[in-house]
Amino acid sequence: MAKIRVAVIGASGYTGVELMRILAGHPEVELTAVTSRQHVGVPVAELFPSLRDIVKLSFMDNRVTEIAALADLVFTALPHKAAIEVVAKLHEAGKKVVDLSADYRFSDQKLYESWYQPHTEPELLAEAVYGLPELFRSEIPSARVVGNPGCYPTSVILPLAPILSLDLIESDTTIIVDAKSGASGAGRSLNLGSLYCEVSDNFKPYKAGNHRHQPEMIEQLKRASGRVTKLLFVPHLLPVNRGILSSIYLPLSRDVATAEIEEALYGAYGNETFVRLLPAGSLPTLNAVRGSNYCDIGYVMASDQRSLILFSAIDNLVKGAAGQAVQNMNLMLGIAEETGLMTVSLAP
Amino acid sequence: MAKIRVAVIGASGYTGVELMRILAGHPEVELTAVTSRQHVGVPVAELFPSLRDIVKLSFMDNRVTEIAALADLVFTALPHKAAIEVVAKLHEAGKKVVDLSADYRFSDQKLYESWYQPHTEPELLAEAVYGLPELFRSEIPSARVVGNPGCYPTSVILPLAPILSLDLIESDTTIIVDAKSGASGAGRSLNLGSLYCEVSDNFKPYKAGNHRHQPEMIEQLKRASGRVTKLLFVPHLLPVNRGILSSIYLPLSRDVATAEIEEALYGAYGNETFVRLLPAGSLPTLNAVRGSNYCDIGYVMASDQRSLILFSAIDNLVKGAAGQAVQNMNLMLGIAEETGLMTVSLAP
Amino acid sequence: MAKIRVAVIGASGYTGVELMRILAGHPEVELTAVTSRQHVGVPVAELFPSLRDIVKLSFMDNRVTEIAALADLVFTALPHKAAIEVVAKLHEAGKKVVDLSADYRFSDQKLYESWYQPHTEPELLAEAVYGLPELFRSEIPSARVVGNPGCYPTSVILPLAPILSLDLIESDTTIIVDAKSGASGAGRSLNLGSLYCEVSDNFKPYKAGNHRHQPEMIEQLKRASGRVTKLLFVPHLLPVNRGILSSIYLPLSRDVATAEIEEALYGAYGNETFVRLLPAGSLPTLNAVRGSNYCDIGYVMASDQRSLILFSAIDNLVKGAAGQAVQNMNLMLGIAEETGLMTVSLAP
Amino acid sequence: MAKIRVAVIGASGYTGVELMRILAGHPEVELTAVTSRQHVGVPVAELFPSLRDIVKLSFMDNRVTEIAALADLVFTALPHKAAIEVVAKLHEAGKKVVDLSADYRFSDQKLYESWYQPHTEPELLAEAVYGLPELFRSEIPSARVVGNPGCYPTSVILPLAPILSLDLIESDTTIIVDAKSGASGAGRSLNLGSLYCEVSDNFKPYKAGNHRHQPEMIEQLKRASGRVTKLLFVPHLLPVNRGILSSIYLPLSRDVATAEIEEALYGAYGNETFVRLLPAGSLPTLNAVRGSNYCDIGYVMASDQRSLILFSAIDNLVKGAAGQAVQNMNLMLGIAEETGLMTVSLAP
Repeated sequence: MAKIRVAVIGASGYTGVELMRILAGHPEVELTAVTSRQHVGVPVAELFPSLRDIVKLSFMDNRVTEIAALADLVFTALPHKAAIEVVAKLHEAGKKVVDLSADYRFSDQKLYESWYQPHTEPELLAEAVYGLPELFRSEIPSARVVGNPGCYPTSVILPLAPILSLDLIESDTTIIVDAKSGASGAGRSLNLGSLYCEVSDNFKPYKAGNHRHQPEMIEQLKRASGRVTKLLFVPHLLPVNRGILSSIYLPLSRDVATAEIEEALYGAYGNETFVRLLPAGSLPTLNAVRGSNYCDIGYVMASDQRSLILFSAIDNLVKGAAGQAVQNMNLMLGIAEETGLMTVSLAP
Repeated sequence: MAKIRVAVIGASGYTGVELMRILAGHPEVELTAVTSRQHVGVPVAELFPSLRDIVKLSFMDNRVTEIAALADLVFTALPHKAAIEVVAKLHEAGKKVVDLSADYRFSDQKLYESWYQPHTEPELLAEAVYGLPELFRSEIPSARVVGNPGCYPTSVILPLAPILSLDLIESDTTIIVDAKSGASGAGRSLNLGSLYCEVSDNFKPYKAGNHRHQPEMIEQLKRASGRVTKLLFVPHLLPVNRGILSSIYLPLSRDVATAEIEEALYGAYGNETFVRLLPAGSLPTLNAVRGSNYCDIGYVMASDQRSLILFSAIDNLVKGAAGQAVQNMNLMLGIAEETGLMTVSLAP
Repeated sequence: MAKIRVAVIGASGYTGVELMRILAGHPEVELTAVTSRQHVGVPVAELFPSLRDIVKLSFMDNRVTEIAALADLVFTALPHKAAIEVVAKLHEAGKKVVDLSADYRFSDQKLYESWYQPHTEPELLAEAVYGLPELFRSEIPSARVVGNPGCYPTSVILPLAPILSLDLIESDTTIIVDAKSGASGAGRSLNLGSLYCEVSDNFKPYKAGNHRHQPEMIEQLKRASGRVTKLLFVPHLLPVNRGILSSIYLPLSRDVATAEIEEALYGAYGNETFVRLLPAGSLPTLNAVRGSNYCDIGYVMASDQRSLILFSAIDNLVKGAAGQAVQNMNLMLGIAEETGLMTVSLAP
Repeated sequence: MAKIRVAVIGASGYTGVELMRILAGHPEVELTAVTSRQHVGVPVAELFPSLRDIVKLSFMDNRVTEIAALADLVFTALPHKAAIEVVAKLHEAGKKVVDLSADYRFSDQKLYESWYQPHTEPELLAEAVYGLPELFRSEIPSARVVGNPGCYPTSVILPLAPILSLDLIESDTTIIVDAKSGASGAGRSLNLGSLYCEVSDNFKPYKAGNHRHQPEMIEQLKRASGRVTKLLFVPHLLPVNRGILSSIYLPLSRDVATAEIEEALYGAYGNETFVRLLPAGSLPTLNAVRGSNYCDIGYVMASDQRSLILFSAIDNLVKGAAGQAVQNMNLMLGIAEETGLMTVSLAP
């Protein structure tokens, strides 16, 4: 059977190289084009020696028409704002698109605009689907544009959505999300804060209560659970390449048996391939998910029964970006959802 | 002037080597003896090549009488339980003691016993002083046994105590402490979880809500602020050698101006050498305190004014252990408090 | 088609978990048993959470008869000496064996015994085949016991063997091998030197000129090239989990054109899947091979033309251990050699 | 006694912050000005939070006249080429200068120009002194411009110089220097190769046989030993912030007793504060020198007595840059050489 042709626009960042890594092992699609304005003509293997002998393409320029001619589905891995028009043009050209920026993640245009910038394609935004398959699977196969979820939101929405439905907290109570991410989350661009000597042997909070992923979490949690949530999101920068571990604190308004928690989590994810519910007493660790598409979830009930803590771990480049994007692609193309995604975590 | 003689019992762990590092640069004391059961007769420089030419002693056996004869003040850096009797014997021998274990930190014997084991020296426990100079300075000069605070408690009590006094939270509200520590906090003993390949590229929570430092925090916060506090302490293991960063979340019960927070912190620490209050907009980072005795404190008010987040950073081996122990020693010996402790942080 | 049953004896170390990771993705074999004396009855996923949902076995005891009944081919991942008899018993039971210890790597029994201990199965040693497929492929399919090469020797023999055949150096000239390995090479046992705080932020040479892999290299280089080689091997410990980078220095006795070097390398490896020859000007890096079965090779000719430097990079747990073992298994079982081994390197 | 006023031009890099760290603890000098074109007006503590409360200056612009008015001795920590004129102007203004670039390190102007660019101040270059005190101490007190040695050259010249004088190698034999440096050696500028995700979990050679520090080593080794040396220098990039470990391989042309090696090393450095000669059987490690001004030296004689391996470890930012610069300053100002430099290494 002929393979389906796919392309990656903006492939020279960490999300780009990760998409290429995953797609290289996918049996039903063929990577036909990758682009990078900065590296036009450069063989992929020169920039990313991990892909030598594996991806034999060279980077093309970001010309949408050319790319559209080469692929049936396109991944856009551009910075937000830059993606708006590129996605729209691909859509006009009749291509399916998985957009890895924030530009097509929001349902509420004004919310998007208050955290990012004006959205020049509001109709397409309204049509786009939020690509978190475990919660919104039914919408994805027919979608033509999927907004691939943010890395932090994936790590927070998955554990939290089924718990919110239990009505364990007062509506005016704030859920605390203390999240920690590896350095690849900041991308491959040249920022002083991304230098080895600034990240190594270091750890720090940043944008406490003021990160753009906070409104994304709140909006999608409302869609998934029907509950309006107050949530305070505080990210921290970890000295590791990959991984997000989120510690989520819920002050409880009523007595809850752990069986009720288990039931909610198993009800939601018992049949999900990419969510692993840890047994009681086990908590997630980053290296259990590194390089894989898993989201590991564990929880602890405080001894006074007044607080529940949810923990999740994902690889920010896989389930938090490229892996989830391929999962969405599989659904959009009618391919079995886990195809190309069963790579085992690399530990140690 | 003759230097005061000091010794370290249990000097072959990370706290021990750090005590030797700091004492080597102290102009008014002389390190006369260090002990290690496991390494009797071995030159310190052989075990710790960083101390070559600097500490010329060899490890002695842990014989209290011999050590007592060689020193006026003794640091005990033994595991908890083992320290109880050693401290008592040194005390009987008329020596001043700074104990770095948990054995002399608690005022409430039963609380200690519920988290550790029976305490066989209850009278000495009652007499011992909790050595957190910034909050309990007046008690330390006359103390004969100082219980040196735990690393996590130091990082939590310092930022939190002055804020608690503001009565910003309901008495039944839980304060969340999400703390992250480097691997030296687990000591130099052979545990699978301390292997390089288990810690590197990894990150994980442990003992969530169930760590022995939680009751220590609560007891001392009550002594410092007069408030009974509900506090949920969740430690995590960071892939760095040194450092604790604590993120402390307070759900507020009333409107608070940031000026009130500033005032409380400056009132408490404006004149303290080893507490640095960061300007608005700055948050602590681990590498700003590495190798130094500083505790850096910053804070953020959530945009809805319903939550306050305090952040602190210390080097767990310095302000969290050996540095604070020397600070206590200085106070006990009538030496200027900052003597030997002004080493600048090593960054990068 | 029914899958071939395989087992791993001694599966609780880093080589063991890596074998399980790779075998889990292998389409033609089924992992039927894994053993660990220390963890009998423990589910694999409990010890190695990266394998949750992937390996559903629990560890069995190391009873050879039981294991032999469950598998057609067995990997032995035991410490040297312990492997001698276990391999022999499996062999008696008619099983094919890939032994990952040093016990079946040497042709010269006395050489083995001078670096290890007496070998109690000399006949089986004589029969065993050194499993470096790129150089000794023809011997492997019919082998019943394969001695899987050491990690350092793999990284040194592959680049060096074809170059030795060019007769570029005097017979009494010493080749310098300055090699650097990640911490997983020391295994998962409890040694002080393997603690996070001892390896992190550190780097050091060890066993300079005195490492057991040196005679293995020399013996196999002689078999591969027909040349007796003087070689000085100096390993160093890198603060990374995985990877070996070897820098190999050859003082040249005659003028050599780079074309001659290229020709030798391409002649040897131009058709090899798992050896990647880097283009002129490119040098290997560890992260280009992490998690993969590749050996990347590059070289530099010194400007005075008197020295040639070869560089190689492998993942010590994959091409240096478990990956190569599976490559050998494939050859022994008549499966296409690269089956299950095409995992792309994980970078970053 | 009034302190001597010193300034740092180009203080916003890693060498700059390290100079400030060391000078802050120096009892006889006062840091009066620091400059950075990019950060004029910014408080030092804002850019480098490790220096909060310690360095209370703000960055000034790089105006030489202004700086000259504020200081008696100036450290120039500018990129090479940029330093040439700045040093010359400071010199004209009658200031003593320690230059940390390569611009005043070479005796042979043509050699400098063949590796860098034209030197526009050849007379001052001829006058400048190479500031490696252990070998050229007598020249430094009267120097008005000191060229502070490169980091790699310091790590290589110190162990090698006294050994060369023994005439152990043929004149046409190549000495191999396989050196490994932490990432701070590449500075604080924005290069893709300096990003955390490019350095972490990675290791690689670079500029093999083609690094600018090679001619510097050869020139100074000739000055120190009187021997012309063939030397092949191959640097590698380590995933640590600080430290250089050099492994130096000498093919021997005659029988050498280890006593002869010891004698040469002890003869050269037995009385040196900042060179530590390790006992037989001990090899240097990076973390034994981190943050300190030590150079640790060890050696191994190959079992066939045909090769000698020297190992050295330094902190590239201290003995390899800022510490050595302060050591030179002390000599130039008539201050005891070790003043301000006795900080103990930070390990772990």
